[in-house]
Parts: sequence; structure tokens; C-alpha cells
Amino acid sequence: MSFQEQICLNPIGLVRTDASGKEVKDKTRISKIVLNEGLIEALDGIEGFSHVFVLFWLNEVAKQPRSLKYHPRGRMDMPLLGVFALRTNMRPNPIGLTLVELLKVEGNTLTVRGLDAYDGTPVLDIKPFDSWDIADNARLPDWWIKLNKRIEL
Amino acid sequence: MSFQEQICLNPIGLVRTDASGKEVKDKTRISKIVLNEGLIEALDGIEGFSHVFVLFWLNEVAKQPRSLKYHPRGRMDMPLLGVFALRTNMRPNPIGLTLVELLKVEGNTLTVRGLDAYDGTPVLDIKPFDSWDIADNARLPDWWIKLNKRIEL
Repeated sequence: MSFQEQICLNPIGLVRTDASGKEVKDKTRISKIVLNEGLIEALDGIEGFSHVFVLFWLNEVAKQPRSLKYHPRGRMDMPLLGVFALRTNMRPNPIGLTLVELLKVEGNTLTVRGLDAYDGTPVLDIKPFDSWDIADNARLPDWWIKLNKRIEL
Repeated sequence: MSFQEQICLNPIGLVRTDASGKEVKDKTRISKIVLNEGLIEALDGIEGFSHVFVLFWLNEVAKQPRSLKYHPRGRMDMPLLGVFALRTNMRPNPIGLTLVELLKVEGNTLTVRGLDAYDGTPVLDIKPFDSWDIADNARLPDWWIKLNKRIEL
């Protein structure tokens, strides 16, 4: 496999939400993930986890020209940083990764809280959150702490 | 976008490791991610984070037939569960997601600890780990706790 080789995949489902614009960033928002009906069995047991990671494809971003460096949240008082040091959507492969609270599973539909994705966003994968996903004593840069006013890890 | 629509992407880099077989599961193992040279700028500032998520493409799994349900780690004393309730590689879209410790950044090469991917694995994205990635009071199913003998979250 080389850098040039293409990897192709199909969505496992789609996001359903009535949030628009900046509303999708609201972490209390509830949205749905409607899975391909052929994948219902793959959900068996997921309700045992309170939180899951959702991997999704930012299809609108994928069509846009992108840079390799940005100021966090467009703030010029913040340093200019590479996209791999940021969680911006504007990445070479615009895959979103968000930890959400799993509220309900009914048939092929998951109800989740905190998914920052627009209606119709293709979902690529769903993974249960567990304690291997936590870094003990993680270190964050100063700009991140200033921007988020959040230091506890 | 429908379930049928294909999403195509190119690797941003490749994993380099001399681990083989089960050695890749050893969380103390050190490996390298060699990025496409055109993406070096996108690493600016990443060294401010101690941990990053690596998203990678399980190219060997992608060629294999897969089921929608498995016993965790193949253990028949564990329940049969859907792949979205498991972190198995055998998923409809075999994207790996692993939290690793970032040890060094030199040119287009990242040195990391804990990446469970084979030599030559295509890397899709790298995201800094921050405190939004932690679920407070996460709940895990009993089978997970039995299997991992790890309950602290």
C-alpha cells in the first residue's frame, strides 16, 4: 500500500438531526443515527455502554479546498497550528470523531447526545468507549487550556 | 448521500514497526508513523499534546469476509455481541482507532507508544487527545469488566 492508493468505503448509516448552523456544536443536543437495516445485528450489546465514539465523514468539507494550518477557531490571538494539532474539520481526510452519550437503541436507530454532525452526514463506524480510551496524566498545550478554559483531564 | 455512495480517501502516512503477530498488541511497543512529506506543515504544534488518536485502515481485514457478531476475543464464555459493541477489527468499515503516547516528532516522522497496527498500515488521520474525549461516569457492561479486569474510568 502506498500513499497514492485509494481506500474506498460505504457509510454504515446517516445522522438525523434538526439542528442547523452552530446549533450542531451544542453538546446537549440530541440526534439520531439511522443505520443501514442490514447492520441491525451489529448493534447487539451496544446498550451496555453509556458512551460511544462516532466516526463520520464530513462530506461538505471533503468538497472544499483546505489549508494545512489554521488558527484555532479562527482566533488570530491564537497560534497558527497544523491541522493534526487541531480538531478542526478542515483536515486532509475529513473524518469526524466525537464521543457521544448513548441514550437509546431501537431497531436500526441510535439516539445520542452531543453529536456535532449535520443532518445527512454519513456515519463510518461506531465504537464503544472504554477505559483504554483514557490517557492518564495527559498534557495539553497552553493555547488549548486558554481557549477551552478547561484543564481537568 | 445515500448508503450506497462510496467515500474514497488517501492515506496520510504509513505505520513503521518491527512488531509482528501478537507483539503489536503490546501497549509498551514503540512504532513510527511516517507521513506523506507534503503534509509536514500539518504537524506544527502537535508536540504540545502528550497523547493523540491515530485512525488507520486495517487493509488486511478489508479483504476478508466478516460477520456482524463475535464473542469478545473469541472467548466462548463471553456473550455473542454485535461488532458495534466491540472494538474488534472485524467491522463493516475496518477503521482502527487507538490512543497513543506521542514521544517525538522529527520531520515527517512521529514516534509513538501503544499503536496496535502492523508495519505498512495506512494512517487516515491523527487527532490530538483532549479532555472533551473523556466521558465522565461512563458505564461499561459486566462482560467488559470481567474480560479486562479493569474498572476505573
